[in-house]
Amino acid sequence: MVSQHILSILQQVQDGAMDIHAAYEHLKISPFEDLGYAKIDHHRAIRQGTPEIVYGAGKTKEQIEGIVASLLSHSPFNILITRLSQESALYLEKRFSLTYDELSQVGIVNRKADLTASGTILVATGGTSDIPVAEEAALTAEVLGNKVERLYDVGVAGLHRLLSHVDKISGARAIVAVAGMEGALASVIGGLADCPVIAVPTSVGYGANFGGLSALLSMLNSCASGVCVVNIDNGFGAGYLASMINHIGGNQS
Amino acid sequence: MVSQHILSILQQVQDGAMDIHAAYEHLKISPFEDLGYAKIDHHRAIRQGTPEIVYGAGKTKEQIEGIVASLLSHSPFNILITRLSQESALYLEKRFSLTYDELSQVGIVNRKADLTASGTILVATGGTSDIPVAEEAALTAEVLGNKVERLYDVGVAGLHRLLSHVDKISGARAIVAVAGMEGALASVIGGLADCPVIAVPTSVGYGANFGGLSALLSMLNSCASGVCVVNIDNGFGAGYLASMINHIGGNQS
Amino acid sequence: MVSQHILSILQQVQDGAMDIHAAYEHLKISPFEDLGYAKIDHHRAIRQGTPEIVYGAGKTKEQIEGIVASLLSHSPFNILITRLSQESALYLEKRFSLTYDELSQVGIVNRKADLTASGTILVATGGTSDIPVAEEAALTAEVLGNKVERLYDVGVAGLHRLLSHVDKISGARAIVAVAGMEGALASVIGGLADCPVIAVPTSVGYGANFGGLSALLSMLNSCASGVCVVNIDNGFGAGYLASMINHIGGNQS
Amino acid sequence: MVSQHILSILQQVQDGAMDIHAAYEHLKISPFEDLGYAKIDHHRAIRQGTPEIVYGAGKTKEQIEGIVASLLSHSPFNILITRLSQESALYLEKRFSLTYDELSQVGIVNRKADLTASGTILVATGGTSDIPVAEEAALTAEVLGNKVERLYDVGVAGLHRLLSHVDKISGARAIVAVAGMEGALASVIGGLADCPVIAVPTSVGYGANFGGLSALLSMLNSCASGVCVVNIDNGFGAGYLASMINHIGGNQS
Amino acid sequence: MVSQHILSILQQVQDGAMDIHAAYEHLKISPFEDLGYAKIDHHRAIRQGTPEIVYGAGKTKEQIEGIVASLLSHSPFNILITRLSQESALYLEKRFSLTYDELSQVGIVNRKADLTASGTILVATGGTSDIPVAEEAALTAEVLGNKVERLYDVGVAGLHRLLSHVDKISGARAIVAVAGMEGALASVIGGLADCPVIAVPTSVGYGANFGGLSALLSMLNSCASGVCVVNIDNGFGAGYLASMINHIGGNQS
Amino acid sequence: MVSQHILSILQQVQDGAMDIHAAYEHLKISPFEDLGYAKIDHHRAIRQGTPEIVYGAGKTKEQIEGIVASLLSHSPFNILITRLSQESALYLEKRFSLTYDELSQVGIVNRKADLTASGTILVATGGTSDIPVAEEAALTAEVLGNKVERLYDVGVAGLHRLLSHVDKISGARAIVAVAGMEGALASVIGGLADCPVIAVPTSVGYGANFGGLSALLSMLNSCASGVCVVNIDNGFGAGYLASMINHIGGNQS
Amino acid sequence: MVSQHILSILQQVQDGAMDIHAAYEHLKISPFEDLGYAKIDHHRAIRQGTPEIVYGAGKTKEQIEGIVASLLSHSPFNILITRLSQESALYLEKRFSLTYDELSQVGIVNRKADLTASGTILVATGGTSDIPVAEEAALTAEVLGNKVERLYDVGVAGLHRLLSHVDKISGARAIVAVAGMEGALASVIGGLADCPVIAVPTSVGYGANFGGLSALLSMLNSCASGVCVVNIDNGFGAGYLASMINHIGGNQS
Amino acid sequence: MVSQHILSILQQVQDGAMDIHAAYEHLKISPFEDLGYAKIDHHRAIRQGTPEIVYGAGKTKEQIEGIVASLLSHSPFNILITRLSQESALYLEKRFSLTYDELSQVGIVNRKADLTASGTILVATGGTSDIPVAEEAALTAEVLGNKVERLYDVGVAGLHRLLSHVDKISGARAIVAVAGMEGALASVIGGLADCPVIAVPTSVGYGANFGGLSALLSMLNSCASGVCVVNIDNGFGAGYLASMINHIGGNQS
Repeated sequence: MVSQHILSILQQVQDGAMDIHAAYEHLKISPFEDLGYAKIDHHRAIRQGTPEIVYGAGKTKEQIEGIVASLLSHSPFNILITRLSQESALYLEKRFSLTYDELSQVGIVNRKADLTASGTILVATGGTSDIPVAEEAALTAEVLGNKVERLYDVGVAGLHRLLSHVDKISGARAIVAVAGMEGALASVIGGLADCPVIAVPTSVGYGANFGGLSALLSMLNSCASGVCVVNIDNGFGAGYLASMINHIGGNQS
Repeated sequence: MVSQHILSILQQVQDGAMDIHAAYEHLKISPFEDLGYAKIDHHRAIRQGTPEIVYGAGKTKEQIEGIVASLLSHSPFNILITRLSQESALYLEKRFSLTYDELSQVGIVNRKADLTASGTILVATGGTSDIPVAEEAALTAEVLGNKVERLYDVGVAGLHRLLSHVDKISGARAIVAVAGMEGALASVIGGLADCPVIAVPTSVGYGANFGGLSALLSMLNSCASGVCVVNIDNGFGAGYLASMINHIGGNQS
Repeated sequence: MVSQHILSILQQVQDGAMDIHAAYEHLKISPFEDLGYAKIDHHRAIRQGTPEIVYGAGKTKEQIEGIVASLLSHSPFNILITRLSQESALYLEKRFSLTYDELSQVGIVNRKADLTASGTILVATGGTSDIPVAEEAALTAEVLGNKVERLYDVGVAGLHRLLSHVDKISGARAIVAVAGMEGALASVIGGLADCPVIAVPTSVGYGANFGGLSALLSMLNSCASGVCVVNIDNGFGAGYLASMINHIGGNQS
Repeated sequence: MVSQHILSILQQVQDGAMDIHAAYEHLKISPFEDLGYAKIDHHRAIRQGTPEIVYGAGKTKEQIEGIVASLLSHSPFNILITRLSQESALYLEKRFSLTYDELSQVGIVNRKADLTASGTILVATGGTSDIPVAEEAALTAEVLGNKVERLYDVGVAGLHRLLSHVDKISGARAIVAVAGMEGALASVIGGLADCPVIAVPTSVGYGANFGGLSALLSMLNSCASGVCVVNIDNGFGAGYLASMINHIGGNQS
Repeated sequence: MVSQHILSILQQVQDGAMDIHAAYEHLKISPFEDLGYAKIDHHRAIRQGTPEIVYGAGKTKEQIEGIVASLLSHSPFNILITRLSQESALYLEKRFSLTYDELSQVGIVNRKADLTASGTILVATGGTSDIPVAEEAALTAEVLGNKVERLYDVGVAGLHRLLSHVDKISGARAIVAVAGMEGALASVIGGLADCPVIAVPTSVGYGANFGGLSALLSMLNSCASGVCVVNIDNGFGAGYLASMINHIGGNQS
Repeated sequence: MVSQHILSILQQVQDGAMDIHAAYEHLKISPFEDLGYAKIDHHRAIRQGTPEIVYGAGKTKEQIEGIVASLLSHSPFNILITRLSQESALYLEKRFSLTYDELSQVGIVNRKADLTASGTILVATGGTSDIPVAEEAALTAEVLGNKVERLYDVGVAGLHRLLSHVDKISGARAIVAVAGMEGALASVIGGLADCPVIAVPTSVGYGANFGGLSALLSMLNSCASGVCVVNIDNGFGAGYLASMINHIGGNQS
Repeated sequence: MVSQHILSILQQVQDGAMDIHAAYEHLKISPFEDLGYAKIDHHRAIRQGTPEIVYGAGKTKEQIEGIVASLLSHSPFNILITRLSQESALYLEKRFSLTYDELSQVGIVNRKADLTASGTILVATGGTSDIPVAEEAALTAEVLGNKVERLYDVGVAGLHRLLSHVDKISGARAIVAVAGMEGALASVIGGLADCPVIAVPTSVGYGANFGGLSALLSMLNSCASGVCVVNIDNGFGAGYLASMINHIGGNQS
Repeated sequence: MVSQHILSILQQVQDGAMDIHAAYEHLKISPFEDLGYAKIDHHRAIRQGTPEIVYGAGKTKEQIEGIVASLLSHSPFNILITRLSQESALYLEKRFSLTYDELSQVGIVNRKADLTASGTILVATGGTSDIPVAEEAALTAEVLGNKVERLYDVGVAGLHRLLSHVDKISGARAIVAVAGMEGALASVIGGLADCPVIAVPTSVGYGANFGGLSALLSMLNSCASGVCVVNIDNGFGAGYLASMINHIGGNQS
């Protein structure tokens, strides 16, 4: 795509349709809008056909409003806002068509549910307390056009809870395994699954959990093949990657 | 598959073809061979149609020999041995048809090169010193039936080296990004690619690298979407996962 | 027990009392109730004859209420709720017969005090500030049917306080040693005792205590034999394990 | 026991059989032999009826020889020497009746195999590389009079290998779970077992394993109840504690 | 300068203009004012011709007031107050001519904008959330007499945003690169720039960011030459050093 | 002292003044009062002639009240309460003659200022923000009968502030060096002083300070001889030790 | 320079001197030579007028030979090889005109000593053991055309050794401060100097030095302004940056 | 002393016995000899009346020889060389009158045993493996003129070994407590002693010992008053400080 962009500009220069300084400016000027505090890429959605994503943490509600308004003026797609505080959500709801999930702090503008991939993504958690992170993953994957199945509270201390759902594991095209504490869920699912497993360590736990470090190290050292890891509590990253993998398997017909 | 196995045994019980104690033994006895020091799963290759994998580190050469012999007696597939010391390789070469890559310490018994997936896996490194880990990933992916393209020494300090290969990045179905030191390669490739990027931190570096910790943390905190991480120096894990993803995209016809 | 469960189902299939699909469903369906946010194991109490345990942290008061109600509908045993916030306790008190200990944040539904083991568990602390964790251990052990003796504020800086209670140490069947700061209590008790010592590091301290790390490492490196360690501040885990050990020594007659 | 010792000395003082200075010397003089570089407790074996234990690491072969000779002059019991280098073993073999296990670096002087407890201790490992640590635990437990069952290479990535031995798990009175990498074995066994599980993290692994830290943290954060942890690679400590627990259940008749 | 000070005192002694005890007192007495809680160096501004700097964190508003008053009585230069809380700013505004930037918590007394160096300092950030730290750097550099250009939200995940400003990078005499998360911005800018790059890791991020550790280690391990690092969130330190470097290149004429 | 205690009891047994069971009870019963939540050593003050010390953190105001009341009933000496919250101080002030220093959170009951040692203790800080910890040290030393000199805000970045007080350094019998950030003050003072330097790292700082870790490691690695370290922010410990050392040098006559 | 490159290509397209596909290839093809294991940038030396630099660690002697040969065929400048093992140096000496410094493991091909900057760079160390790292910095700076002054073994524990060279500190245009252990040298020099101080922590030390961590954290937390930090033992990085800063101050005339 | 030095120079200037440039040179020139790789302070021994100390690690045998030769030419006192490798010792023995202790790697030139302080220093260890560090402390203290008593292998797991030597503890003027593993020895001795206790953590141990970190943190968090800590394995530092403290108590008459 980038090379086609260059070729097309060069063609216009050769055709005399563009002089070299204009061409240089085109090559130089990036396809984004500069709000000062943010540089918004309006071509990404068009290029990739995916919703826009805004990371809400560390931004004021006015900054988020500005970014969303800019995106809406260029793109027909959904906008996913992660780590959106309740206060900012209340502010945005008055201005945009926002759906907000309090548990996972996910906001979606212009929510639409079109499936664009044919497979299923399984999102599993070790415990009840991991659900907020899991929902961030699940909602992200749904907004990105995937069918998502949830399997919560199936930690390895009660193995039969997980084993009784072996069919869901073997039916998925990608699995997001969300767990805190010792994070063993990822290894056990990794040993049972034939598809990629994206492990999400959570900060759930206390003491020698050290803010999610125990689950993170555990998942990185998984003895099961086909397991990879994202950042602690990064449900969004796991949902996004699962969607990428699921779409490789073919679009929804 | 597991549920079909259970159903088939139950069917035989119902048919009177098997009594309940024999059935119990079947349900109980796992499909592996017990060598005492190792329990070898002979059904995995048959079930998944993939080569067997042996992790060579921490095993004596005699133990590896025993495992390989056991595998060969059950499976027609390749056997991949990772972290195989030169000493053990010399020992095995006299007993099996072994191909050994000294740089990456990868050994392959019965090497065959059939492509079974249609896409391409790109393996990139930040520097020359990261090549051993990258080769472990590349050889793993090749043995598992993938076409692999290598792009070495394209670290972000000389960005034009990477940018001049943007076409390779956009042409891949999965990318393995191998880097030590600050590990920024994964983020930069992640920002350019539309496919999953599997980041492999390496222990290459010194001082505040802390054995690969700097690259590991850097990759886990990547600001690019679609990036996941495996253990430090885990080329095998990255190659295996990349193969899984590539095969989702359809088999080689 | 699991194998008896399988054998019994197979017997029914062989007897024609169950068809194979029903049997499969029985084998597949796990013995728990699915509340969506939690999967509750109703067989555990029956199987093990022990009270149910609910980990309260990270659960809403409504979720805890749902779990307790589900447990009460299946089991006659006590229900122990750890890490129960005062707010949740106030909410539950209106719905169930709850006993709540504010210091240790332990709640017990249907409190009963039947002794089921013959030995004594000693719970000792290094200082006054370690008492909340110690009480979590002591209350857990009591609910599980053990006689518990408390020995608080016997840290090693004033050794005579501990030495004057050597008889309590030699009279216990299992000891829970709770200490923060340098955690030396576990080693000193370990050197004096002839029974298992379960060390609980606490996060009591400041500075280079690093949230309990100093006591944790100290206890893991104990030079005394017969000492094991649980997570920082994990009074429940220590009380549960001490009860397991105490019950090995014979039930209360 | 200590108090009986004091009482007996006081009795002799009262009886005039001992003057106060002699009594003071008796109270002061500890029941050990001082070799200068080591203070050997000759009463421990007599008091506890257990073999003597010598920690071999960091001691010269001459120091070990001196300690063993001193012990042999006072005690009829076995002497267990852990972390005994091959070089020291060769040196000691010429002087004492030594049995030496090279894999686990365990040496035993005057090996005897009398069972003194009635239950069985199960020692399980995640992989083949964990066996040396497991053998340290198993040999320790055997020397201390326990029946030991070994279950090696049953890591959670191939769950059926473990599940096919569920009967061994339910038949044990104490379990030692030895695992490196992500250490999930402890949690999975902890969820299946009704007896105490002593988790031993090993330094087996690489990269983000950080010398056993990943398995250690994983085990400390285990979501299963009844699990405790000893130091990384501390097979001896686990075997010793398992023996203590097993002997609570009653002696071999 | 220090040696000239000594020489001048010695000259007066030799000239008889000062006796040795007075000289000793002069040599001994440091050129600062002692407020008890602070020792204020009044010669620094005169000696170096730069504004005074007060680190506001950990000081009461009354202490800051006292220090500012003392400085104002000796120096005509600006006073820069970093980490100044809003509460303290409100208090100081009533007493001094204070300009306060809420975002970066920077306060300036007697703000003047004289340029004293000829080059330009570029301050760049990876994301919107890094702006407060970047502004601390930018305002510091401006108060110290530098022309500052800002380039915000040019993180490496969207490389074209940065590449479209390559001219700003090549036009700077010193660059401050501010980034959290994986901190790759420093390496990428370092690879593009021909001038010193001062990397400022920020605590922006979550999970395995560990309070800025990931960006810090990443920047310390940068594979680009000409990059150095200051403390996490230390915008002031970077701005101060950039100013030092910029002034080496010659003063504003 | 302990041996004299034993001898005296034995003497009474020999003299028939005490029977052996009473003697045993005397030997067994420790010289402390048991409040349940605390075991108070009433002999320490008498034995050592020093004030009692209560560590206030983690204790309720009622517990502190109980401990103080118990101490007052046995001892004529001062009582020092460290880490005493303002709320607890207000509560205690109504019940006892309490002097409270808000900055350092030190409370003293029955404050008396008798000097009992002849030397001077110097307490120095790197910055203004380190003063609370320094005051904890200074007040502790004063209560324990020492003359204390304060030297605050003499950090190494302005070396002349420290060098102008070289006479105070050489005049001290023990020095407490309190510093956060890089903690270099301890090494510099250690190089100038001929007496023991007790280094107190403080948690003052931010970013890579990691709660005082930077100063702690710096001080532990001091290249100056005669420097030792106490816990982060442990002003009390430093003041106590300085007093011990000062009293070795002879009492106040 | 990059933009001029683009403009020149576009000009040729517009002039008809180049067709668009050739232009695209020119834009795409990077200005480096691809050796497979390394991608060598031949334009850097020409563009920047500086010697080439090869990082020797982790490269085979044959790889280094290939890189040096490639560089020599394009560039008239010196080639600096850091972290060059003695073995590789012996191999290269037979093929190129190599100067090798064993202490710092620095090799220089075609050594020339032309001064290109007017100021002086001071390289100071805390101790004798820091000299290898300091020499890496000094030799790097010399090869890059700077005058270097060395000031070794002036650690802060003997402050007069440093203070007696205050004139060297005030005469430098940039200072490299190399220190292990507590790393206080950087802060003390930072407080005395008016020019940028580049701090290099070394791994010299033991125990709580943790491989250079203590000096690294100390330097990052320096209370002196104008101090920045490079990686542990990174003498090269410090020398390179010092040279950059020194050249800003004007070239040697 | 420093001020007397200044005054004396000033006096000569005033008297005309010295001109100001000579005086400046005197003030500037430090009282050390510059060997290039080391700056040797010849006044320290004279000023403090103590032996010279050379830290042998990281210095070549030729460098140590040069330093010793320089010291011998100026000072009549002993020279203590710590961390002296056997190889260097053999080299030095041929040139100087060297006494070498292989275990602790301590070398002493011109060994003399004059007692200069009246008290006794007790050096205690937890185990046999801690003896090398303890001997470094003991030999250092002896060379510095102290009477030293050794108490080895008295770890807290066998408390009676320590308690039987309570008289040695109460008879010491300073105690050096050397321990690895959990380092509890320092706290227990600290609770028994009335004199300063200098705790030396050792790197003895394995696993979660993390190179001495466990003992270090344990000792820093000691609940006993009067305990301070030096670096891991820093026997020299402890011996030096103990000597300082012991000499405060008065010289040997």
